[in-house]
Amino acid sequence: MIGPGALGRAASILGAALGADVLIVSNTTVAPLYAATLVAGLPGKRVVSCILPDGEQYKSLATAGRVFDALVDHRLNRDVTIVALGGGVVGDIAGFAAACYQRGVAYAQIPTTLLAQVDSSVGGKTGVNHPGGKNLIGAFYQPIAVIADTQTLETLPDRELRAGLAEVVKYGCVADAELFVWLEDNIERVLARESAALTHVIARSCAIKAEIVAADERERNLRAILNFGHTFGHAIEAATAYETYLHGEAVALGMLIAADLSRRTGRLDAPAERRIAALLHRAGLPTLCPRVGAARAMDLMRMDKKVLGGSVRLVLLQSLGRAEVTSDYPQAVLEAVLAEQFG
Amino acid sequence: MIGPGALGRAASILGAALGADVLIVSNTTVAPLYAATLVAGLPGKRVVSCILPDGEQYKSLATAGRVFDALVDHRLNRDVTIVALGGGVVGDIAGFAAACYQRGVAYAQIPTTLLAQVDSSVGGKTGVNHPGGKNLIGAFYQPIAVIADTQTLETLPDRELRAGLAEVVKYGCVADAELFVWLEDNIERVLARESAALTHVIARSCAIKAEIVAADERERNLRAILNFGHTFGHAIEAATAYETYLHGEAVALGMLIAADLSRRTGRLDAPAERRIAALLHRAGLPTLCPRVGAARAMDLMRMDKKVLGGSVRLVLLQSLGRAEVTSDYPQAVLEAVLAEQFG
Repeated sequence: MIGPGALGRAASILGAALGADVLIVSNTTVAPLYAATLVAGLPGKRVVSCILPDGEQYKSLATAGRVFDALVDHRLNRDVTIVALGGGVVGDIAGFAAACYQRGVAYAQIPTTLLAQVDSSVGGKTGVNHPGGKNLIGAFYQPIAVIADTQTLETLPDRELRAGLAEVVKYGCVADAELFVWLEDNIERVLARESAALTHVIARSCAIKAEIVAADERERNLRAILNFGHTFGHAIEAATAYETYLHGEAVALGMLIAADLSRRTGRLDAPAERRIAALLHRAGLPTLCPRVGAARAMDLMRMDKKVLGGSVRLVLLQSLGRAEVTSDYPQAVLEAVLAEQFG
Repeated sequence: MIGPGALGRAASILGAALGADVLIVSNTTVAPLYAATLVAGLPGKRVVSCILPDGEQYKSLATAGRVFDALVDHRLNRDVTIVALGGGVVGDIAGFAAACYQRGVAYAQIPTTLLAQVDSSVGGKTGVNHPGGKNLIGAFYQPIAVIADTQTLETLPDRELRAGLAEVVKYGCVADAELFVWLEDNIERVLARESAALTHVIARSCAIKAEIVAADERERNLRAILNFGHTFGHAIEAATAYETYLHGEAVALGMLIAADLSRRTGRLDAPAERRIAALLHRAGLPTLCPRVGAARAMDLMRMDKKVLGGSVRLVLLQSLGRAEVTSDYPQAVLEAVLAEQFG
């Protein structure tokens, strides 16, 4: 359910799927802004909450343990519905806790960032980080509903809005040329947070992701195209200790590299590559990679969990709206691209 | 795969399902006895291990974290196969870690206790305990194979063998009158650890459980009959702080109570109830409940996670081999039974 004011209508949206007991999982930033509205929208339910500290560094097994503690302390049983209210970190932890508590209870996602609304809240990937890598502990577990209230984006910092837009651009690149063109025509409306424009990009993004995930939930094949820009992006995030870039910003840089490689390997034409770079630039996303060194970037890409054996499989574009997952590219070309971007 | 010597043939049993990398999860009691045989049966594989402390008190999220640490430290990827070598605690933790690592990797069960061979290794219930209750954190996640080597029972303490037999008697009670009669005729052969007798009871038990789980993996209905004796048994375990009885011993007491209630509510005839009591007695299982008080037992039963709302659903017998899940019994009769048993 996507649109302004959806947050306050949670009970009617969730309907009979909602149990008598609700545990709201949120964080110290989002709960003061939106928890009261959510609770007001759940009349007649026993509502308790578990407020986590805010930040990716808390996306850990220990924090998931705090959610389990809350579930047990409040004596919540299999009938509970967990409601995740917040960004991707809250959603991933709450979804993982829902997957594991009593071997699986219902949960709903109420994402409050653009990134979570267009990406992490849809598709059922839940989990927490391990010191050795991101999202190494988790489950595929689908929510009963995703409620994206565009009004919650009004309090979102501008930088986070732009980072979320990177994933929207991604959907256009890999699956929907029409969305890409729409963004070229309307990106300023999105950045101005026009309700109708936000609703449109969220709805299109969710529809694209849902279609891909429905065809390949466990990412055996097709779903991997959603990682466009991500293998490079993860390397950038890791090389900068997750401190310099927001996820979407690193993905934006990664998409530039992937588009460059797509062109140099004869897949994508030069005008299309320029359009991608221009759109990301208009979205206010970074366009220059950190000079961490090509060798270090290559190492980090190999460590990325999506790399099996020695061959780094990448998502490359054939045209705007059409992607392939491939390891069919000359290693020398990849190295040249990395050297140019990372020094 | 059930039979003597199966442990040493793991690679050929698992075949192509086995990845290049294997993480053996075991404990400090079982690993010194059987890990070397297992490793010898995995030629050409990269085998590493994670040895946990022995005991139910270590069946925790923190111990699962140690398995995640081992997986990450050894840089094991999605191709790893986790092999659980040990009793139910090891199998439950290892299976849960397999369910969660990178959102699901392959695992095999090599149970080394009779209880694990006939019960916990089959059916895909994995998980760990929370201070607030047993198995509150977990997943339904099926192993690629279960290998029950009857030779590993040669080192099993006699008391644990008898406790495992309680679950075998349970299968006879709820689903297989023929198995019940076979046990009446052959229980001494099982207690003497005759290989053919052990193989028979394990094979029959696994077949019954597999059939029930295949029909109802998530325990929405039919699978609940496998909890015969367990609601009472869990209350007995909790009332004695899990220190007095092995799980199977508490279940044996629980089955006596459930059979008594089945008779008093007009379901089971008196001779059948006497046969159950006689068989459990011959198995060397306890027959007298601890005097913890009926009110305390009732409270603990209500707390059991299988109790929804206020009505305690119980598994009662209609005849040997036929069970039903029901809350259709007079509360006064239940209270009378509890008062008699628990004081």
